[in-house]
Amino acid sequence: MSGTNHRKDQGWQGPTPAFILVNPQMGENIGGAARAMWNFGLDRMRLIAPRDGWPNPAAVAMASGAGRVLDGVQVVETTGAALKDLNYVFATTARNRDLTKPVMTPERAMAHARELTANGQKVGVMFGPERAGLQNADVVQADALISIPVNPAFASLNLAQSVLLVAYEWRRLGDDTPPEVLALGKARFASNIERQKLNDRLEARLEDAGFFWPEEKRESMVENLRNLFARMPLTDADIRLLHGVVKALGRKRP
Amino acid sequence: MSGTNHRKDQGWQGPTPAFILVNPQMGENIGGAARAMWNFGLDRMRLIAPRDGWPNPAAVAMASGAGRVLDGVQVVETTGAALKDLNYVFATTARNRDLTKPVMTPERAMAHARELTANGQKVGVMFGPERAGLQNADVVQADALISIPVNPAFASLNLAQSVLLVAYEWRRLGDDTPPEVLALGKARFASNIERQKLNDRLEARLEDAGFFWPEEKRESMVENLRNLFARMPLTDADIRLLHGVVKALGRKRP
Repeated sequence: MSGTNHRKDQGWQGPTPAFILVNPQMGENIGGAARAMWNFGLDRMRLIAPRDGWPNPAAVAMASGAGRVLDGVQVVETTGAALKDLNYVFATTARNRDLTKPVMTPERAMAHARELTANGQKVGVMFGPERAGLQNADVVQADALISIPVNPAFASLNLAQSVLLVAYEWRRLGDDTPPEVLALGKARFASNIERQKLNDRLEARLEDAGFFWPEEKRESMVENLRNLFARMPLTDADIRLLHGVVKALGRKRP
Repeated sequence: MSGTNHRKDQGWQGPTPAFILVNPQMGENIGGAARAMWNFGLDRMRLIAPRDGWPNPAAVAMASGAGRVLDGVQVVETTGAALKDLNYVFATTARNRDLTKPVMTPERAMAHARELTANGQKVGVMFGPERAGLQNADVVQADALISIPVNPAFASLNLAQSVLLVAYEWRRLGDDTPPEVLALGKARFASNIERQKLNDRLEARLEDAGFFWPEEKRESMVENLRNLFARMPLTDADIRLLHGVVKALGRKRP
């Protein structure tokens, strides 16, 4: 990605949550979930009673490039077995439950997950099967629910998309990428003297062309022109390009 | 979604960015992008020279439920035509470009987009075709780049996933869902007197059973027990359940 060069690799190590797929149906969706996890550096997947058994060739084919997630997958038969070593478990859920349970945004949930893992706690996130979602018997075993703030009029995230968004939040909250950088390519910012020389050349040419007229407007016209260039983040390459432009504009047409 | 009832509909109205798909190939991906947008309340899509023309039955089939995005789609032949009325344009890009250009995280970009639209500016986000990504001739027309902070070892987001993550950030930053709520279902929190009565009953039963022993530990044992229940967010229903439990545990086995 652009900006990768500005990113340190800190934050990609250390304990990460286990993502637990409960009764996943299609192998393609298991593979898609693996890809979504690995896009954001997560590789601990657990499967509870996958419908088509395990291993699943369709999952492996779809996970192409994220095979390490499936290589390390733990497959168990019950929710109890999947959760037994975990200290804190989230359940992602698309429906309102008639349960008394904390409900968190993905952001709040993954911030909490980072606090917990930093303190040596093992964290898991449960995702339900494609159509039905998690059953209440599974949801009651969770410490908290994650609710993704989708459009109330169209809440139709599939399994891999839900996994993607929660994995993205995990990553985002540990990411040290600066929110905004100016990518400079091979360039550097122009020095002040380079800017001044461009201004001087442009103003001299415009002077010759009678641009600064009437005389009483001259000062403000010069100021506005200087300000226009001053607020642009010009590089050395930009300055050279603009010198060429000014020169070319002064040429007579052949 | 769970927690929907806590959410006001504020933030779902008002101007939203246009998402511009440049030379999209597969109709399924256009439909998937439409679904991803509408999941987070965005419905302004523009297509530049879709490979298979327009309308595209595969796009319509995939967009099921998010058809309003495709109903309102603008289809044009050139990037210039797609961008002409926009005041600020982002380009999502997966590769480092040798261009001098601001590079933003999705979060920073969508925060900026919200500032701009709040000031009446029209904002667009360009997404490249599935395999190739955006060409430099398109990227240079953008004011800034968006770089999603993916795993440097596995950066393989597809078109609909990139759309999903940027749309999610737009929505998240305008969302007034509280980060954490305790969903109470039909219950209410227990009153202090309800808690006291449960404590009294439990302690009386334990007293009868000789639990508070040795005597010098009594005080701290009572305190620990009260603290255990006090730090639980008990509802009226929980209190009734626990009264039943205490009562049942005191019964002789049949």
